[in-house]
Amino acid sequence: MADRPLKELGWKTPLEVADKSSMDHLASVGICGIIDPIAPGIPPGSDTATLALLGYDVFKVYTGRGSFEALGWGFEVSENDVCFRCNFATVDENLKVLDRRAGRIADADASRLAESLRNIRLSKGDIEFFFTNTIQHRAVLVLRGLKLSPAVSDSDPGMEGVKVAEIKPLDNSQEAKFTAEILSELAQKFHEVLEKHPVNKERVARGQPPANFILFRGAGTLPKIKPISELYGVKASCVAVTALIRGVCKTAGMQLLNVKGATGTPQTDYIAKAKAAVEALETNDFVMLHVKAPDVASHDGNAKKKVEVIEKIDKMLAYILNKVDLGETYVALTADHTTSCATRNHEGDPVPLAIMGPYVRSDDVEEFSERACVKGGLGRLRGKHVTPILMNLLGKVKKFGA
Amino acid sequence: MADRPLKELGWKTPLEVADKSSMDHLASVGICGIIDPIAPGIPPGSDTATLALLGYDVFKVYTGRGSFEALGWGFEVSENDVCFRCNFATVDENLKVLDRRAGRIADADASRLAESLRNIRLSKGDIEFFFTNTIQHRAVLVLRGLKLSPAVSDSDPGMEGVKVAEIKPLDNSQEAKFTAEILSELAQKFHEVLEKHPVNKERVARGQPPANFILFRGAGTLPKIKPISELYGVKASCVAVTALIRGVCKTAGMQLLNVKGATGTPQTDYIAKAKAAVEALETNDFVMLHVKAPDVASHDGNAKKKVEVIEKIDKMLAYILNKVDLGETYVALTADHTTSCATRNHEGDPVPLAIMGPYVRSDDVEEFSERACVKGGLGRLRGKHVTPILMNLLGKVKKFGA
Repeated sequence: MADRPLKELGWKTPLEVADKSSMDHLASVGICGIIDPIAPGIPPGSDTATLALLGYDVFKVYTGRGSFEALGWGFEVSENDVCFRCNFATVDENLKVLDRRAGRIADADASRLAESLRNIRLSKGDIEFFFTNTIQHRAVLVLRGLKLSPAVSDSDPGMEGVKVAEIKPLDNSQEAKFTAEILSELAQKFHEVLEKHPVNKERVARGQPPANFILFRGAGTLPKIKPISELYGVKASCVAVTALIRGVCKTAGMQLLNVKGATGTPQTDYIAKAKAAVEALETNDFVMLHVKAPDVASHDGNAKKKVEVIEKIDKMLAYILNKVDLGETYVALTADHTTSCATRNHEGDPVPLAIMGPYVRSDDVEEFSERACVKGGLGRLRGKHVTPILMNLLGKVKKFGA
Repeated sequence: MADRPLKELGWKTPLEVADKSSMDHLASVGICGIIDPIAPGIPPGSDTATLALLGYDVFKVYTGRGSFEALGWGFEVSENDVCFRCNFATVDENLKVLDRRAGRIADADASRLAESLRNIRLSKGDIEFFFTNTIQHRAVLVLRGLKLSPAVSDSDPGMEGVKVAEIKPLDNSQEAKFTAEILSELAQKFHEVLEKHPVNKERVARGQPPANFILFRGAGTLPKIKPISELYGVKASCVAVTALIRGVCKTAGMQLLNVKGATGTPQTDYIAKAKAAVEALETNDFVMLHVKAPDVASHDGNAKKKVEVIEKIDKMLAYILNKVDLGETYVALTADHTTSCATRNHEGDPVPLAIMGPYVRSDDVEEFSERACVKGGLGRLRGKHVTPILMNLLGKVKKFGA
């Protein structure tokens, strides 16, 4: 949700131009501040940012994106598994990447393609793999075996117009070498099946790019962290669609709620999500509600859409503020990172935070935005401080010392 | 001294409503900021908070409360000693705790009881113990021997109406098991002596609860830290009554001053403490003056009393500002933690800090309070930064680098 001042918005940020009376109300009755999700100047991933906002030191606990994607999709990741985020992509005959998202392939097509990939046999018998599409072009791969390592490079080059990257071991271990070999074999076998698949023939006939390659990235293992339920003795749940976010929340010991109409896109059902969060608060101490839409609009460089999405989130917040008991509920609003419409990337700029609720030391900030919240009573903090601050307000943090 | 906005004060904090012209003067001519004694959201103990404010990283050096209590009471703690904070308590015949403070037993009674406990013999001959009452129901136990461990649980259940807790080893070591056994034996033998003690018969006859049990908690060993005298080459003293605070200061290599009329309660002689501090400045580089009273009022949930106490501290500060040479003296004012009258607990909310003296970069804050100091020139810092900042102003911090 956070951004930089944009020329097309008269050098204001989307938050600064959006009509968002509920967010501004939260800021004006609450305490505000500015948060570096990871550290000043470090562009966060959505996984590291969320993990940090949940109170963890990501420099100590982060073990790669892959396991969060798999967990978020409901896969039970085991200790020795190595997991990958994957993309259905379009490549030409020289393996040059033409479209990293295969025209943002529809779920139905991706499902049929994924189905055919499951029957592939690996030459090394003691390794199992699990592959599933998730949303659109997104997919997850889990390798299971005793001699695997996450120290392998991505085949996803991260851009279009260049060749698929060679998968290389990133250290000198036998395990890394072995894992890179397995992945290269798998990529090749996936490609062979996809190239001649009827679904792709149909796609080409319809004028759509064929999803003829699976790109791998973000090798990761299960992070070893204490769940927040144990750290603070709270029951916690999350309302989120994005697999990566769900995976982080699952790792943190939070219950994953499913909401009909929530899509992880700008067309999500904002009020359905709000309803689910409010309901969850009846049986939970802590509920995190995540909306992916502003990030999607930012990656598309669409400032106008981003402003619209922020206004929808404002209405979602209005619903929540109307429904919860504000005499005993704390509401915190923040962004997991800055994604700028100008650069279309995650940036290392900080994000605004506002917290309202009983006994907070309210300040004189009256607007929820990147620049207004800087002047708030929380000052400038790191992402990892946010959950302890909230848990302290709930009386859930153990005293350190006597 | 720090608090949250309170309903009974019109949603202001005790500092915000108190009449405190000297504190406000200090803030207005000085530089202000907001301090997390330990870290954002972490409720500090008085020991960890003071240790942090003296410049130490408590996550690295803190070894439990017990040794500070013993040191603060003037006991020379050795390297292998394990120390405990104790309470004279009242239990029934089933060891249910009826009063954790034995009716806040008077010093005279506690002294006579403690005297009788010193003659007890332990079944293991190679362990010595030292037991002394301190103030009211408070007492200290030191175990001395080569095979001891601080990894044992408290017998103090921390609340009334439940049984005395069983003392258990907290790790798998022989030492922890052995220490737990020694403590259980000692608790039993103390109980036997106290049950039939004439002092308790007198107490019951007077309608007072008998002090028939000694509760143990906060097992701790001597922390291994460099004294501030050595770290900065300064002579440092403290004016404090609370044993815990005195113990921390002693550990930090500070001289402990005794002040007649200083009691560690809201009825302390504030001006006597100020006089002692001003006098000490003639022969010391650094003097810490600690007042326990606002914490006491907060634990009692007494906002009105807290405001009164703050106003007395303001007069104490006025005395100091009148007496010291402000051309060469730095005066810093802060709280060691937030204790809220609303929750009656230590909270993880930050505390205000103001520093005045030659060459400080004064800011435009004009009031000493939790919310006003947020806007000060120091920004938001951790407790461990405070002493280095003061020592730097004194020219006592060694350059790091060339």
